[in-house]
Amino acid sequence: LARRCYKQWLWFMVLFMSFSVIYVDAVWPMPQMISSSMARYTLNPREFIFQYSSGSSAQPGCSLLDSAFERYFPLIFTDYRHDEWFRFPFTVVVHVERAECEGYPDADSSESYKLSVCSGQAALRAETVWGALRGLESFSQLVYQDDFGEYFVNETKIEDFPRFQFRGILLDTSRHYLPLHAILKTLDAMSYNKFNVFHWHIVDDPSFPYQSSTFPDLSSKGAFHPSTHVYTQIDVKRVIAHARLRGIRVLAEFDSPGHTQSWGKGQPGLLTPCYKGTVPSGTFGPVNPANSSSYQFMTRLFKEVTSVFPDSYVHLGGDEVDFTCWKSNPDVRGFMLKMGFGTDYTKLESYYMENMVNITKGLNKTAIVWQDVFDYHEKIPVDTVLHIWKGSPGQIQQELSSITLAGYRVILAAPWYINHIDYGQDWEKYYTIQPLNFTGTEQQKKLVIGGEVCMWGEYVDATNLSPRLWPRASAAGERLWSDERMTSSVIDAFPRLVDFRCRLLRRGIQAEPLFVGHCRHEYQGI
Amino acid sequence: LARRCYKQWLWFMVLFMSFSVIYVDAVWPMPQMISSSMARYTLNPREFIFQYSSGSSAQPGCSLLDSAFERYFPLIFTDYRHDEWFRFPFTVVVHVERAECEGYPDADSSESYKLSVCSGQAALRAETVWGALRGLESFSQLVYQDDFGEYFVNETKIEDFPRFQFRGILLDTSRHYLPLHAILKTLDAMSYNKFNVFHWHIVDDPSFPYQSSTFPDLSSKGAFHPSTHVYTQIDVKRVIAHARLRGIRVLAEFDSPGHTQSWGKGQPGLLTPCYKGTVPSGTFGPVNPANSSSYQFMTRLFKEVTSVFPDSYVHLGGDEVDFTCWKSNPDVRGFMLKMGFGTDYTKLESYYMENMVNITKGLNKTAIVWQDVFDYHEKIPVDTVLHIWKGSPGQIQQELSSITLAGYRVILAAPWYINHIDYGQDWEKYYTIQPLNFTGTEQQKKLVIGGEVCMWGEYVDATNLSPRLWPRASAAGERLWSDERMTSSVIDAFPRLVDFRCRLLRRGIQAEPLFVGHCRHEYQGI
Repeated sequence: LARRCYKQWLWFMVLFMSFSVIYVDAVWPMPQMISSSMARYTLNPREFIFQYSSGSSAQPGCSLLDSAFERYFPLIFTDYRHDEWFRFPFTVVVHVERAECEGYPDADSSESYKLSVCSGQAALRAETVWGALRGLESFSQLVYQDDFGEYFVNETKIEDFPRFQFRGILLDTSRHYLPLHAILKTLDAMSYNKFNVFHWHIVDDPSFPYQSSTFPDLSSKGAFHPSTHVYTQIDVKRVIAHARLRGIRVLAEFDSPGHTQSWGKGQPGLLTPCYKGTVPSGTFGPVNPANSSSYQFMTRLFKEVTSVFPDSYVHLGGDEVDFTCWKSNPDVRGFMLKMGFGTDYTKLESYYMENMVNITKGLNKTAIVWQDVFDYHEKIPVDTVLHIWKGSPGQIQQELSSITLAGYRVILAAPWYINHIDYGQDWEKYYTIQPLNFTGTEQQKKLVIGGEVCMWGEYVDATNLSPRLWPRASAAGERLWSDERMTSSVIDAFPRLVDFRCRLLRRGIQAEPLFVGHCRHEYQGI
Repeated sequence: LARRCYKQWLWFMVLFMSFSVIYVDAVWPMPQMISSSMARYTLNPREFIFQYSSGSSAQPGCSLLDSAFERYFPLIFTDYRHDEWFRFPFTVVVHVERAECEGYPDADSSESYKLSVCSGQAALRAETVWGALRGLESFSQLVYQDDFGEYFVNETKIEDFPRFQFRGILLDTSRHYLPLHAILKTLDAMSYNKFNVFHWHIVDDPSFPYQSSTFPDLSSKGAFHPSTHVYTQIDVKRVIAHARLRGIRVLAEFDSPGHTQSWGKGQPGLLTPCYKGTVPSGTFGPVNPANSSSYQFMTRLFKEVTSVFPDSYVHLGGDEVDFTCWKSNPDVRGFMLKMGFGTDYTKLESYYMENMVNITKGLNKTAIVWQDVFDYHEKIPVDTVLHIWKGSPGQIQQELSSITLAGYRVILAAPWYINHIDYGQDWEKYYTIQPLNFTGTEQQKKLVIGGEVCMWGEYVDATNLSPRLWPRASAAGERLWSDERMTSSVIDAFPRLVDFRCRLLRRGIQAEPLFVGHCRHEYQGI
């Protein structure tokens, strides 16, 4: 059936400038391969169903895809209120090779899929349920409405897979508390953009909102408020479940030894007491690396964390450790002497981080750490992932070269610090990043496993998160998913992103405008 | 009664650093004079009423204050669902000298008020209903809740009046269409900040959303969409009514002769046809100043506009006129010769604007124009108001000197182009503007009638309007209302503005955070 259809089609490699002539909207991010014809089918919400193919490994009862079908119906037919179905529906037949319907997406999950809209139906084939989710998203973006409200989908063929395995968004829930709905809404928008990792920078200096069952004082004393500004175990489970249904991993970060001021409130003795001369000043520095109790505490905390968060990776932080307080403390100085570190505090930091990575390894998790850990030449297992967050474009290229030369995998976040804002179309800056533009072998380039958009929380909370994130993060979303050669022009991307942003609005995502203009349906929120 | 109360009090001129010790929140913008004691009253929503004093000119039936009482009850008791009242209520007794309950606020409306909270009641006295509105806002901000949800108000005495008569916010509904709810919500927030002029930059090059009864083609052809992206006469009336109830004037701007591309679609012949050599190029420039039909059209349009908008001022625009197209057009060149303008096109622009100001005068309205009209030395009536929008700080001071020396009144907008954004706490920049810091006599300084926050729409629509506007515009709000000597320190203002921003959130205004921290009630919108 599909073969017959292909013959009828006028196949052409899509010329992107002419693309918008055929579709009102195209798929964002750009699929690896997409072609389409002028032929189109009218879709009637009352004659439209999703269906498992007879040979599919996933069948009715596959919670993940059953709920995806339910979700995508109103995403496709935005105006439509559910009604009974008629005969001869337009069918989206879904075929999955391996049905991990109750599992979690992980680092090696395939997200590839093939989609064919042809002969009055759509066929979606994927190795995994995660790939099927990506294909459903693409299908939903192929559907468009004309001026009379009728729905259409053009004959289309897509073969698609992500360029990078790790496509993350970081939210910071310590500098400002983000209510649960803001996190869930972000996960929705991430799935529309085919992001697949929610990096939850859950705690930091200002507050500790994670409600630990092992150490309840951490949030009861370290959160902005012990009951209204915390994430309970139920909240965390809800985030993980919501993410799972959208094929999104939840990567928890418990950053130490720096960035831990809020930890100290609920865990006395954890932080280093700073000294002024020979007396404690009353202030505290990073986690005390000289006390074995620090590592005992961390072992118990991470035992909990790694059981609560199912992902096989955990983020240990390790950035921006200020040595001033360590240097002031006589016990820490004594420990330095005993360990033979001399006065090189980077050795102390290394020692701390090595211990942390080993704790993680003992819990069968792989560690991700900020680049500082590499910069200080710590001895860390080679499967540790380094996370680049700082430097000029030149320094970033240098860092990419050095880290991959040492054989470590790397995630690139530095160019996508999206909390920073400028007046005008700064999405272009995020779009034109070339993650593999550094000196290195093919083997080195393969060690760049992806990138991440970081929304640090100094000036961001639920009031401005969405318009600051979308559609600016969508630019990074396409860079991380699509073929760079097919998506190198901001001029070509602009009208597609304008359309996609209107689609986000239509789905209730408060995405800000790119420039002068309008959407058929403007934002109707508060 | 009031006198007795005063004696009991420990009066003190408020030291602003210690202010937050007494109140959780203070009044924003800072009243001209405020003092308070540690004594406080518990407010019970079921025992609280607003009431007219027996001698007040306004009495029950005064629509404006009746509806303000209804509005302020839930603003004060945010958690409370209405119930029957108990005996012995806490009473806010309102006394108004002149009851213009059905009128509109205008340029010479007094907004001063006196508020005394004492002896278990509050007494609010104002010359006008507009002053009473400002006093109700201040009273509502004096009320705070403790950790158990109980409401309190401290004994307080306020004498207050605005520093500047004109405290405006410009919204641009041409570059992006703003749905009605976004405008109404902005008016709500303006009243919380004691802004009193909504400058509605309603049309411009990209679109003409104003649905004119005289020239319906202007919007049916010039709007982004003829039915979903227009402001009907009913919409406009609703905006004006909503503004009136909050003591806010609606200043309509129909900018010409430039910024009129969208006008040309529905009014053929209005714009100047541009020429390439000896033939029309197919593009159009500013309004054609050589055709008498242009002035006939404008007379009819402004006759409608000035009857729809009750304010005694109207904004004629007059900025950024590009002469290229005029120069290319042989008819315009012929007209120049005939009028003896030589090749000085500023004379042609002057001629056009003089005609426009005279049309306005004939309709009994006073014109406001952008500074360009002054810069080109046009002969305009001395009651015209100039609107400064451009230049470096030095140039702005020079412009203030020149315009006021020539005897014109002036509104300062240039320092408050709030659509421009920077990373970090840029509210400080808006807060520290000194509008009267220019060389000039006392008489000249008096000609500075106020300032305006401009939210141009290139990158702004309903998705990001609120968080971009608030609380950054609040900084300008205090500068324009309060005594500069009492509000010169950003360090003192910061905690007050942080509290005020939480109050805005609590009232449903999507105001973004100033820095790391939290509000007791976080934003619960989408």
